[in-house]
Amino acid sequence: MSRIGNAQLKSKVMTAEEAAELINHGDKIGISGFTGAGYPKALPTAIANRAKEAHERGDDFMIDLFTGASTAPDCDGVLAEADAIRFRTPYQSDPILRSKINDGTTLYMDYHLSESGLYVEQGFFGKMNFAIVEAVRITEDGHIVPSSSIGNNVEYLDNAEKIIIEVNSWQSEELEGMADIYRINHLPNRQPIPITAPEQRIGSTYIDIDLDKVVAVVETDAPDRNAPFKPVDETSKKIAGHFLDFLEGEVAAGRLTYDGYIMQSGVGNVPNAVMAGLLDSKFENIKAYTEVIQDGMVDLIDAGKMTVASATSFSLSPEYAEKMNNEASRYAKQIILRPQQISNHPEVVRRLGLICTNGLIEADIYGNVNSTNVIGSRMMNGVGGSADFTRNGLISSFITPSDAKGGDISAIVPMVSHVDHTEQDVKVIITEYGYADLRGLAPRQKVEKMIALAHPDYRPLLEEYYERALKIAEEKKIMQTPHDLANALSFHQRFQETGSMKLS
Amino acid sequence: MSRIGNAQLKSKVMTAEEAAELINHGDKIGISGFTGAGYPKALPTAIANRAKEAHERGDDFMIDLFTGASTAPDCDGVLAEADAIRFRTPYQSDPILRSKINDGTTLYMDYHLSESGLYVEQGFFGKMNFAIVEAVRITEDGHIVPSSSIGNNVEYLDNAEKIIIEVNSWQSEELEGMADIYRINHLPNRQPIPITAPEQRIGSTYIDIDLDKVVAVVETDAPDRNAPFKPVDETSKKIAGHFLDFLEGEVAAGRLTYDGYIMQSGVGNVPNAVMAGLLDSKFENIKAYTEVIQDGMVDLIDAGKMTVASATSFSLSPEYAEKMNNEASRYAKQIILRPQQISNHPEVVRRLGLICTNGLIEADIYGNVNSTNVIGSRMMNGVGGSADFTRNGLISSFITPSDAKGGDISAIVPMVSHVDHTEQDVKVIITEYGYADLRGLAPRQKVEKMIALAHPDYRPLLEEYYERALKIAEEKKIMQTPHDLANALSFHQRFQETGSMKLS
Repeated sequence: MSRIGNAQLKSKVMTAEEAAELINHGDKIGISGFTGAGYPKALPTAIANRAKEAHERGDDFMIDLFTGASTAPDCDGVLAEADAIRFRTPYQSDPILRSKINDGTTLYMDYHLSESGLYVEQGFFGKMNFAIVEAVRITEDGHIVPSSSIGNNVEYLDNAEKIIIEVNSWQSEELEGMADIYRINHLPNRQPIPITAPEQRIGSTYIDIDLDKVVAVVETDAPDRNAPFKPVDETSKKIAGHFLDFLEGEVAAGRLTYDGYIMQSGVGNVPNAVMAGLLDSKFENIKAYTEVIQDGMVDLIDAGKMTVASATSFSLSPEYAEKMNNEASRYAKQIILRPQQISNHPEVVRRLGLICTNGLIEADIYGNVNSTNVIGSRMMNGVGGSADFTRNGLISSFITPSDAKGGDISAIVPMVSHVDHTEQDVKVIITEYGYADLRGLAPRQKVEKMIALAHPDYRPLLEEYYERALKIAEEKKIMQTPHDLANALSFHQRFQETGSMKLS
Repeated sequence: MSRIGNAQLKSKVMTAEEAAELINHGDKIGISGFTGAGYPKALPTAIANRAKEAHERGDDFMIDLFTGASTAPDCDGVLAEADAIRFRTPYQSDPILRSKINDGTTLYMDYHLSESGLYVEQGFFGKMNFAIVEAVRITEDGHIVPSSSIGNNVEYLDNAEKIIIEVNSWQSEELEGMADIYRINHLPNRQPIPITAPEQRIGSTYIDIDLDKVVAVVETDAPDRNAPFKPVDETSKKIAGHFLDFLEGEVAAGRLTYDGYIMQSGVGNVPNAVMAGLLDSKFENIKAYTEVIQDGMVDLIDAGKMTVASATSFSLSPEYAEKMNNEASRYAKQIILRPQQISNHPEVVRRLGLICTNGLIEADIYGNVNSTNVIGSRMMNGVGGSADFTRNGLISSFITPSDAKGGDISAIVPMVSHVDHTEQDVKVIITEYGYADLRGLAPRQKVEKMIALAHPDYRPLLEEYYERALKIAEEKKIMQTPHDLANALSFHQRFQETGSMKLS
């Protein structure tokens, strides 16, 4: 049976190449896609080819690309390779696009995921020309059943002048029912978002659109980007252990119960290890109100440890993606996919009392966190939703190995070279050496705890820095946040000069 | 007629000195008080005297002091002078306390005002020993009618083991009715906060307490700290003019209407100048959902320009404080005082679509903002509620003169020496030289706009810095946020060495 149930839209079926002809240089295009799930599979390559042809002719051809979050090599990757992206927001993690951002080809506005769709709605980017959104199917009424991510689909479909829909038959039709589409009223008529528990559904399973805006429907049959997670290594296991110790401490202090843990978790190998640790823990009836469903959460659901996972997208290994596609209707009882404005909304995050866990690039001795700019300048991926959750979560934690690049980069530095999470927001930091509970502490009280998290190779350097900083601060009576400004960024300078933060 | 209507509490009346005898070294004490309004007038001096006597005997005597926000010389000031404050949170602005923080005597946890009460509720500080709260009167039922600020009164009264009430007959009894006391349910039963417009009242006009926890009632008759605002100077007038230009631009772009402005405003002379500018503007039916009612808002109300002001406290000049005390029942129709957890709540701030305006210490060429630590180390006041509003406001702006200290400190620097507001959160910055609208821009696109805000004396230095940073970034392909790490903090280092950020 055709997946395009609406006659008007069926008449718009064409090839990706034909659809791409509708796109012009300079267009602002909002697409579906979040952590490699649910992005359009055909248009990006077709647009990239148009750009290449134009560039060969000596013509300009670049677009401004807005997504949910990261996409995939056959989306961000092909477009970046064709030098077709002038401006990109709000999040990416593609190696080629990253290099284009860092060589200056592409302008990148790294932005909070909860606000990026809102920003479009408010007109802060100007008029959006196109929305390109992947669907599982189009209903008779012309409603879109979204595929494996929701992201900013609603905001782009509502606000773009023209719509292109990709109907991807690779995506299981059983995904229908997972989505929970809810629109927040526009100002000045906004109402409370009525979510008081992660399992609540408050909207519809499809997106209603203005059919007259649809200029093309393209049929595809291509998989999401699904990369395997790394096997859990010793470092990740230790970090997971310390995280569990921290949770156990909260229970012991009477601030948490074994069935009261509501999880938000960033994506990656270390968070996945934490979830593996939870499998064997005393915690039960775990709920997730988070951005992304990853393998570890599926395991928790299968083990009966997790009752519900609310997110906006999947980030699964190929094996788990196949399982999800085969058993989507079963999982749909415990998995809800929401627009990212809702999955990450400060209002709901604050209300539910989340315990949040995200990764970081570096933290400093006072607990400020850099999640984005390596050595202050080079963009890694972006802030993503980490700030949406970190500021408003009940307890916001960060997990990281104590070093990177074979030991040449310390995750703990005297002063971070870029700040994404301020000292006020960062409550707990965890490395393989333990956890630092920073709650209720003034800056100077945090230092010893933070240095204890560092790799032993870096501890003497950090201690030496702090002693010098303290001496200056005592002398000048500037003791709130002692720093030795001449050496505050010395770890980073040394890395730039010698390739290592260590003394050579 | 007595202001203590309840017999049980009447039996607890004693002198401040007697009440202070109940306080022990090491106690955690949560008091009322916000921007110099509604703080206890007698106990602080009595506790300070106890501390002095203990210190003279060679005994330890220090308390951990929790407030709404800043208090006054006869509260923070006397306690700091007696070296009686071991730990202080969440906000202060007292000169003596500030010096004790910066000389290392007092540990200061600078914290978001919307979360500080919540932090106590969650037990993150451990057990609170005392709540000391100022009241206008105590009702027959033993309810407390709060005085000129609400702050964290509810959280401290609910969570402390013992309560001391100061009934201050200086405060007008007509303040009764202004307060709107609302408690958010505890986890896991939190519900949406039902505020959808600043004028909505959702609670009671008094605070109900556990009478058995009250160990003392002290009668006082002393004024709030009410400092005059400075007359509007030329620089402030220019800043106010640029702010209005920005608002007019939003109207012209169709993103704002002349009767759709909902204001949040930080406290100070420049914000007060902005309000004076609004008096003569085309904006009507202005509403405020903010922290503090200051003179300029009273003028807007009196002029019929502002229909409602919701806040948690007053910060008035002596003249305006007298007016408020005399005409409180009239103003109560347009003024609502809420707990600071509600006045600053991310949920409500985001929902209402506030245009937020706060001050800053320095901003960098990429729009990161430092609101707290002068030259990276020395605490000025604190982050206060600025981050509550800045992250969640519809448009978050910062206003500041381009320089300070007679020109020796530039408000625009290459890299801020401390970050309180990240590049993602800062939408507009305004100095006397214009406004920089940073919305929708990648970091490099912000630089020219930011340098144009700087004092002309600093512009060549900033341009030179950026050129050097750009050259390094081009060479190393780290173009997201170009920095020259060796000189990123050079303005600050120069100030520390020579007393000026200028080249000597």
